[in-house]
Amino acid sequence: MSSADFLTDFHHVATIGATPRQGVDRQAATAEDAQSRAWFSKWITDAGYTLHVDGIGNMFGLIEWTPGAPYVLVGSHLDSQPLGGRFDGAYGVLAARNVDELMRASGTAPSFNLAVVNWFNEEGGRFAPSVMGSSVFAGLFDQEKMLDVTDLAGVTARAALAEIGYLGTDPRPVTVSYAEIHIEQGRILEREEIAIGVVDRSWYTQKLDIEVLGEQSHTGATAMADRHDALVAAAKIILMVREVTTDFADEAIVSSVGQLTLEPNSPIVVARRVRLVADLRSGDPQIVQTARATLLEKIAALAVEHDIQITVTDFDVRPIRYFPENGLQLAEAAAVRAGLSTRRIQTMAGHDSVAMNTIVPSIMLFIPSVDGVSHCEREFTTDTDMVAGLALLTEVTTDLVNGALVDSATAPALASTVRA
Amino acid sequence: MSSADFLTDFHHVATIGATPRQGVDRQAATAEDAQSRAWFSKWITDAGYTLHVDGIGNMFGLIEWTPGAPYVLVGSHLDSQPLGGRFDGAYGVLAARNVDELMRASGTAPSFNLAVVNWFNEEGGRFAPSVMGSSVFAGLFDQEKMLDVTDLAGVTARAALAEIGYLGTDPRPVTVSYAEIHIEQGRILEREEIAIGVVDRSWYTQKLDIEVLGEQSHTGATAMADRHDALVAAAKIILMVREVTTDFADEAIVSSVGQLTLEPNSPIVVARRVRLVADLRSGDPQIVQTARATLLEKIAALAVEHDIQITVTDFDVRPIRYFPENGLQLAEAAAVRAGLSTRRIQTMAGHDSVAMNTIVPSIMLFIPSVDGVSHCEREFTTDTDMVAGLALLTEVTTDLVNGALVDSATAPALASTVRA
Repeated sequence: MSSADFLTDFHHVATIGATPRQGVDRQAATAEDAQSRAWFSKWITDAGYTLHVDGIGNMFGLIEWTPGAPYVLVGSHLDSQPLGGRFDGAYGVLAARNVDELMRASGTAPSFNLAVVNWFNEEGGRFAPSVMGSSVFAGLFDQEKMLDVTDLAGVTARAALAEIGYLGTDPRPVTVSYAEIHIEQGRILEREEIAIGVVDRSWYTQKLDIEVLGEQSHTGATAMADRHDALVAAAKIILMVREVTTDFADEAIVSSVGQLTLEPNSPIVVARRVRLVADLRSGDPQIVQTARATLLEKIAALAVEHDIQITVTDFDVRPIRYFPENGLQLAEAAAVRAGLSTRRIQTMAGHDSVAMNTIVPSIMLFIPSVDGVSHCEREFTTDTDMVAGLALLTEVTTDLVNGALVDSATAPALASTVRA
Repeated sequence: MSSADFLTDFHHVATIGATPRQGVDRQAATAEDAQSRAWFSKWITDAGYTLHVDGIGNMFGLIEWTPGAPYVLVGSHLDSQPLGGRFDGAYGVLAARNVDELMRASGTAPSFNLAVVNWFNEEGGRFAPSVMGSSVFAGLFDQEKMLDVTDLAGVTARAALAEIGYLGTDPRPVTVSYAEIHIEQGRILEREEIAIGVVDRSWYTQKLDIEVLGEQSHTGATAMADRHDALVAAAKIILMVREVTTDFADEAIVSSVGQLTLEPNSPIVVARRVRLVADLRSGDPQIVQTARATLLEKIAALAVEHDIQITVTDFDVRPIRYFPENGLQLAEAAAVRAGLSTRRIQTMAGHDSVAMNTIVPSIMLFIPSVDGVSHCEREFTTDTDMVAGLALLTEVTTDLVNGALVDSATAPALASTVRA
């Protein structure tokens, strides 16, 4: 398969769940997600490979060159944010899907087999937390608990997966290593005119689930002094979450409130209850912890000032994860062979590779994002950059299926950590 | 029917859609609204009266003493806010429902017939704007447009009314005058220990529909400086709407944001779009207009500061409406006969009587609210105050069916303004 064929495929998949301004809307376990899964499934079947779907909806295209050998996994996710970009995740699956034919052309007889993976619900827009499928695979999250997670309409992940026919029962491939390529979603590579980011670590991240309980009253008849308006208090919290980043150096921390629900949400009723999720991320855990402490202190003072109840709960705390040094060097050497410039880079966003790296040696590669924007329709990366990344992923995967990063003495032990 | 029977009935209706903390949740055209409508309908039928349901779901219990004579309307609304109180609206319908038997006991042969009314969607929590059914009756709102209004789930008022079986086709009663009794929803009567408020005017009110368009991006990967966060800008607007009231004397103006929707509302996506509704009310139109001008100016500056687009649209502008002086005097004289103290009072909240007063002479009465709270579960009024109000409403209605406020020369002209 040529680069031209890869691009044809990529731009075809971008039409699934396409939005008016060139984005995609393929949230996890929706009808649009099912369509991209059908495309992925058809490729696997048409190519004569074996499709496995596990109990959390992860899809594996198993390419078995050496019967009984464990697998190198390569892939990413086809789900998207609501009105998300067409590159985030999909690029990594499409690039992985292309690797097999290039591999086959090389005529090597590899030590390990290859599985191309489409992880369930990397985005977490519909079902929180994000990076769900790969985290279950890695044993970081409990599968049953994740299947019980509900979206804002009260539908469980279990019901949604069953509805689209992807609540599978197949065994998971025994895995020895993992590789993933993704758009950067930041502007560092573009700014420095570098082709490839070799990810050496993930940022420390944590979320705060904040519930503000005021008192419902009439927007017309209730005097201002008698109100305990949950939305006014929530608005102050939203600004505190933004403001706390200015306590630190530029770009040292990012924070946001992306989800908020309001009750009763009536134009003429003062809000009783607001629930919001704050997201804090930094390369330095101490910065997140300091910001969190500042927020807790200010929120406690706010509750007193407004005479309302505010509850803050930590969740989805993710420590810094380091990718293995020999994997970084492998990627850098492969880039030299492919004639591509590289730099080491950190990821502020979560990725399936971060979860996988907790159980097998993993390699994470970035290609540039125009303007650094992501999770929106105008997310963009050039065909040239995508094709360059594809060449590098092929080089890296070739090394991995030939045994790189896997100590033969420890390989079975590693494999046994993957639950069937 | 005795006061004891009235109280029994009142507390029975309070069990329909009852919430855990003694409130009710009977939003317009829901299953709970249908249940209270069934109760109202059964009372009308059992009493041998005629039930008419018009094209916007208003229900009329027609008591025809004098065949062919026009009607005095008396009533309020059985719908509630989400987690609303059990007195708001329901008290007025129940009190009206009681008037007929007391009237009958008096043995008078009145000039006009009586219709007890349950107006559709006074609250507007599910379908905006509020005061919908009586405003359509009064010709202030277009019926077809109102039936096309959708709730947040996209269901039209037309479909919701049809679903519960209350999209009627009956003619509307020809009407000569209107009376309504309601809880104050403020603390003036309680503070001054006065039994009855005689409403002389409604406040000037208006709403602003505010749309904030930022840019969707990744909460993790996007640098703070690169964001155009619609929720951060919306939070500032919420605080501006609160803050603007401090430009004026205490209790001269009330303002709030009670409804807000966020897109895409994902924990790890910076918000693209926030839509919110601000509500401004004052006894002095100039104060609302000054507050509105201040807000528009600050919002325009905010849009520039955040480099985002903010659109503000005026809607639901309601001028001050004066109730007729002879109606106020009628109510005050009736209160003297009933041994009840009164004061004149303004209403900050909208009411069906305000709409009705635009087409026929109308009388609006308030009884005290404990702590002045309303639109919440702990809304409360004592049985004693309810029974006192009931006695007054009966006196007032007796005067109205005997021809008070209606000039016989103009009565037919007034009647003809009511569309069948």
